[in-house]
Amino acid sequence: ATPGRTGPVAGGGDCVRCFGSPRVLVEPDPAAGFAVMKMRNPPVNSLSLEFLTEMLISLEKLESDKAFHAIIITSDCPGIFSAGLDLKEMCGRDPTHYAEYWKAVQELWLRFYLSHLVVISAINGVSPAGGCLLALSSDYRVLADNPKYAIGLNETLLGIVAPFWFKDTLVNTVGHRVAERALQLGLLFPPAEALRVGMVDQVVPEDQVQSAARSVLAQWLAIPGHARQLTKTLMRKPTADRLLKERDADIQNFVRFISRDAIQKALRTYLEKLKQK
Amino acid sequence: ATPGRTGPVAGGGDCVRCFGSPRVLVEPDPAAGFAVMKMRNPPVNSLSLEFLTEMLISLEKLESDKAFHAIIITSDCPGIFSAGLDLKEMCGRDPTHYAEYWKAVQELWLRFYLSHLVVISAINGVSPAGGCLLALSSDYRVLADNPKYAIGLNETLLGIVAPFWFKDTLVNTVGHRVAERALQLGLLFPPAEALRVGMVDQVVPEDQVQSAARSVLAQWLAIPGHARQLTKTLMRKPTADRLLKERDADIQNFVRFISRDAIQKALRTYLEKLKQK
Amino acid sequence: ATPGRTGPVAGGGDCVRCFGSPRVLVEPDPAAGFAVMKMRNPPVNSLSLEFLTEMLISLEKLESDKAFHAIIITSDCPGIFSAGLDLKEMCGRDPTHYAEYWKAVQELWLRFYLSHLVVISAINGVSPAGGCLLALSSDYRVLADNPKYAIGLNETLLGIVAPFWFKDTLVNTVGHRVAERALQLGLLFPPAEALRVGMVDQVVPEDQVQSAARSVLAQWLAIPGHARQLTKTLMRKPTADRLLKERDADIQNFVRFISRDAIQKALRTYLEKLKQK
Repeated sequence: ATPGRTGPVAGGGDCVRCFGSPRVLVEPDPAAGFAVMKMRNPPVNSLSLEFLTEMLISLEKLESDKAFHAIIITSDCPGIFSAGLDLKEMCGRDPTHYAEYWKAVQELWLRFYLSHLVVISAINGVSPAGGCLLALSSDYRVLADNPKYAIGLNETLLGIVAPFWFKDTLVNTVGHRVAERALQLGLLFPPAEALRVGMVDQVVPEDQVQSAARSVLAQWLAIPGHARQLTKTLMRKPTADRLLKERDADIQNFVRFISRDAIQKALRTYLEKLKQK
Repeated sequence: ATPGRTGPVAGGGDCVRCFGSPRVLVEPDPAAGFAVMKMRNPPVNSLSLEFLTEMLISLEKLESDKAFHAIIITSDCPGIFSAGLDLKEMCGRDPTHYAEYWKAVQELWLRFYLSHLVVISAINGVSPAGGCLLALSSDYRVLADNPKYAIGLNETLLGIVAPFWFKDTLVNTVGHRVAERALQLGLLFPPAEALRVGMVDQVVPEDQVQSAARSVLAQWLAIPGHARQLTKTLMRKPTADRLLKERDADIQNFVRFISRDAIQKALRTYLEKLKQK
Repeated sequence: ATPGRTGPVAGGGDCVRCFGSPRVLVEPDPAAGFAVMKMRNPPVNSLSLEFLTEMLISLEKLESDKAFHAIIITSDCPGIFSAGLDLKEMCGRDPTHYAEYWKAVQELWLRFYLSHLVVISAINGVSPAGGCLLALSSDYRVLADNPKYAIGLNETLLGIVAPFWFKDTLVNTVGHRVAERALQLGLLFPPAEALRVGMVDQVVPEDQVQSAARSVLAQWLAIPGHARQLTKTLMRKPTADRLLKERDADIQNFVRFISRDAIQKALRTYLEKLKQK
């Protein structure tokens, strides 16, 4: 039995019975059948290799424990859901590291997108690029109604291109035309627009994000689990299979692209600017 | 010449010149180029093997008679369009029967989805699961504005999974994201929501469903028939081909799934509950 | 250097420094990074073989000149964006001509749909059939708010069938269901409806079409060009590849179809009617 299942769970960050890891706080509520997974990789929940690995381990733990049928994923960093991929993992390292990193990014998507658990995103902050991908991998997205909390795959703004499986996930969510324009322009959608185009399913006042996610969850947990999981697979497996079929080629593409001098230089410049802020 | 073509046609159920079969009342209006196909398999138009067979025969008759370019499909059972597949055909029978039944269900979809006739659904009652599939196979859906007349593929609620071609038909109608959520949650959409997500094309007051369907039909019949048919094929054949390519495997999947002890038990329990109502 | 780059550019049709060809007036603004391509094949910008060829040459010129990152395509013929394919090219000619013509139509779509330039349509008139296809091949569509300026693939109304790649382009823009109904019925959408279903991105007062297109362009030009181009390819190449894979078969299909007596007769009748107007 996991520690989290041995007793009641507090609501806050100082929950003593919670399991998880330094960067991923898991607040289990096994009686209700779900756990809250709080991302705590300050300042902006960048998806570093270590952080990705901890998220995957936490997800696997919950998936292999029959008490859990769902997770709510949310952020413990004020104002940011996740800033997305960690540019530091892509800058000034060797090809082996880039390959290892990209494999972990793929794994995160594959595991969350296909998880047999219900995954609800309680999006309590901005979620660009990889942060948006994580949200899009959920079954349902609740976004806090704060004009600063924009969401989108804004890769082109940095001069890079979203991988095809980011694109596929977005197309599956908002359709081909909205995705085409959003990806070319690197659009970040504020809440009202995000709701209108279908990037999120619900926008609620900021202090109700967690409770709204819990309410929605009740509806999902009421569905016979086995049938729901098979249906999710039916919908998502063809998209996941596209990556699985060319996973290595996708890694090599990434390594080749990121190793270019022009890209390395652009990333260094960008990281310098971020430091100065 | 069919009997129905020899004289005027009454509007109601006591139409003496109508052809059809015990469970499928066909009211032809050859001068106008269409027939109304009324489903009359009380109490809920369950798609039994016999009923499916009669529907297919009626459709074929109309398709092979050049006087007809369109059909309106509607229900003669108050408050129900069709309750969908007949659980009695799937419970306590042998594998040969299950296979025969499933082949007829496939055939119904293939023939209606690809019919060269214009098919308009005048949905005058609730249409869950297979009833929804029938409606989705039409070219246009008019739904009566009654909050009880929900429509959707609610298979997961019964612990079963919509087959991939049900899913494909829904995705073609409402897009990937709406379909994904609707199928996982087994959502039944009341009229206003059904219209909003595109599950139906028009919602009208209950007493205007038939007349609205006839009005819409006029627009469809004004289009050069050959070009319209080829265009319909262009849009739908790739989806139908997916089933045609693995039709036998799909039958075997169904037989294997439905023969499971757990499923048989669940169906028996469900049928018992229905009887008690 | 092209003539257009040697000096300032006037806004109107009497621009002395503009390059282009008799039927395609190119007004370059290299300092701003774009050119306006004005279609001037009166009375209705029919896509004749000669006109198609001139459009392709103008596009290639702009694409090979690094000063240009975008074009705005618009009409110089009052009230008409483009009437679409030129029926005269399809009527009373020999198979070799039909084949040559169809290849040019394919080429127009392939080049505009995949152009590395940003392509904005400033739709200042009606755009049926091939005129609509041209607009759909852009990255963004601004439509003048005039109830006469309907847009759509209305091929079935003439008894012909939109080719699969017209269909694919429409599905990519408005989704499968809207495309299915629009193509079967040959729907022409007036501005408000065109906006609602996503056939165009913006509807503006008629005298603001050109300025609105310019405003939008600024947003597109602000995106790093290389990343934007790769993203466009990512979105569109699979659709273009479907035609590229069976380009010859598509030409043969067209030639076979258009050579039929019934089709030739229908086209002659239609052309006669047009003349009488």
